[in-house]
Amino acid sequence: MTPPEPPLGEFGRIGRYLAPLAAGCPGALGLTDDAALLTVPAGYELVITTDAMVAGVHFLDTDPPADIAAKLLRTNLSDLAAMGAEPFGYSLVLSLPRDLDQGWLAAFAAGLGEDQRRYGIPLIGGDSVATRGPVTLAVSALGLVPAGQALFRRLRGPPAGQLLFVTGTIGDAALGLKFVLGDLDDSLAAPEDRAVLIARLRRPEPRLAVGQALRGLASAMLDVSDGLIADVGHICEVSGCAAVIDSARLPLSAPVRALLARRPDLLAAVLAGGDDYELAFSAPAARRAELEGLAARLGVAITEIGRLEDGPAGRVAVLDGAGRALAPGARGWSHFS
Amino acid sequence: MTPPEPPLGEFGRIGRYLAPLAAGCPGALGLTDDAALLTVPAGYELVITTDAMVAGVHFLDTDPPADIAAKLLRTNLSDLAAMGAEPFGYSLVLSLPRDLDQGWLAAFAAGLGEDQRRYGIPLIGGDSVATRGPVTLAVSALGLVPAGQALFRRLRGPPAGQLLFVTGTIGDAALGLKFVLGDLDDSLAAPEDRAVLIARLRRPEPRLAVGQALRGLASAMLDVSDGLIADVGHICEVSGCAAVIDSARLPLSAPVRALLARRPDLLAAVLAGGDDYELAFSAPAARRAELEGLAARLGVAITEIGRLEDGPAGRVAVLDGAGRALAPGARGWSHFS
Repeated sequence: MTPPEPPLGEFGRIGRYLAPLAAGCPGALGLTDDAALLTVPAGYELVITTDAMVAGVHFLDTDPPADIAAKLLRTNLSDLAAMGAEPFGYSLVLSLPRDLDQGWLAAFAAGLGEDQRRYGIPLIGGDSVATRGPVTLAVSALGLVPAGQALFRRLRGPPAGQLLFVTGTIGDAALGLKFVLGDLDDSLAAPEDRAVLIARLRRPEPRLAVGQALRGLASAMLDVSDGLIADVGHICEVSGCAAVIDSARLPLSAPVRALLARRPDLLAAVLAGGDDYELAFSAPAARRAELEGLAARLGVAITEIGRLEDGPAGRVAVLDGAGRALAPGARGWSHFS
Repeated sequence: MTPPEPPLGEFGRIGRYLAPLAAGCPGALGLTDDAALLTVPAGYELVITTDAMVAGVHFLDTDPPADIAAKLLRTNLSDLAAMGAEPFGYSLVLSLPRDLDQGWLAAFAAGLGEDQRRYGIPLIGGDSVATRGPVTLAVSALGLVPAGQALFRRLRGPPAGQLLFVTGTIGDAALGLKFVLGDLDDSLAAPEDRAVLIARLRRPEPRLAVGQALRGLASAMLDVSDGLIADVGHICEVSGCAAVIDSARLPLSAPVRALLARRPDLLAAVLAGGDDYELAFSAPAARRAELEGLAARLGVAITEIGRLEDGPAGRVAVLDGAGRALAPGARGWSHFS
């Protein structure tokens, strides 16, 4: 019989679970120094983004810790992808209850380690503190982009002639969340379909390669986190233009198509639901063929879903298959109509 | 009579309180993009450090919000100072209870704004999330250091001939905390002395100019946050050497000297108390005169307090005025003797 281990202090936690994650980064200084020291190669700019997650707000206490780690890291990497940047490291802030089960932290760190290998990035530093509240996590991801080539939400040039595109498929995560929350009855989808949707919610795939390949090609870009309509609206707000989305062209996964066939009303959730972490971007109509080549080369769907146009800043119209404006009403886009 | 304002959402909070703090930084993109875009000038390396603070753990709910902002920012800047870096911006993660009084956030942001002007740094980004727990804050501070000139905890070269120095005065914050917590009776110090000590606790002064001036001069450096003995121990641990501190040489403020005259036992708290945010560093004995010149030029005391020496890694001996080893016992240094 092994006696129970004494609780680890901050230094113990860092040494056991976090320092191994920094082993690949000399500039992390083994996490023993006050800060990390990093070199930005000549000709590159630094991109930095931060996303935080709180237990009970952004994830459930019962979610698998490795899934929480993956989502935390990947939502940050998605922000780098949206600027066309290549990730090179991340820092982590852990605010953990003193009585947190050590197995939770071990599983969380294992999840980070797995994704570090997947995306080729080390932990470079951060902080670990105690809290009397819920587990609170924040990651700052650092990326590099060739100087002058970063992509932004704000459109370069006028909206006329700019088409709207989106990577991958839309709505999987939003419908997955409805199953997780019990808002949709399990009988509405086959178990394997539900599993696909929930996996898309918990382990989004940051579109890093596509984001980098779109440098010099996309004219405005962001990642779809708040919901397709809201996020296209964000592009339009900062760019002073409007957009039209043709709902018949939305790229939908087979599970989402099957669900929509039974419950057409769920289109609102697909359009407004968020958590897709796909890239939405505009590009000139003349470069459509290049985009097709890029999609084929990278093995990621890129679908034309509409266009930008002159109009009130931030207005996003949604058309049905016959070109008629869809009625608003779903959360997230009603105020744009 | 003005009706009460409706609660601000995340975008509202960011727009009202945070975006103005980012106005000085084009790369912050008005906080409307997914990430910030920063240029590291040629010939410089990037230093990044992160410190988090939780209400009820690192500060009291009743502490003035502007003081909390100052401490959060300055502890991070102190980490930059310890590496000889010049600060150029910071990102901020706010995890705030939904029912937080808006006045708290306004005062907190005002405190950040004041310190931004003081230290010449903009807000570059971050995240703002809701929590059902206590206010949880994290700052990542970014700094620049000429390539190859950063200072570290790890000693360059052998310990023989390396003297130990510390900036400013030691122990003020630790004794200030004892008054705040009621561990010391107010009658032990004059009100103006207590105010000085508590101000040092709440608004530490990051030694940025000294830290930068010590590039090429200090052989190992860190900032004193855990306590002088523990932090000198950190240098010794990563450097594989020992240290001797002459307690009679410790730089003490007039309020601390007055307290020690009445309560000599408080020396343990001065040595081990932490939160000083002064720089502790080693430098070759041959360069003592340069340090004196530097201190005079910058108007910051630099005091020789001991030396490094060969010995068990991490051992810190404390001598009294007669050169006799002081008995251990205070938290933070008992295990080093």
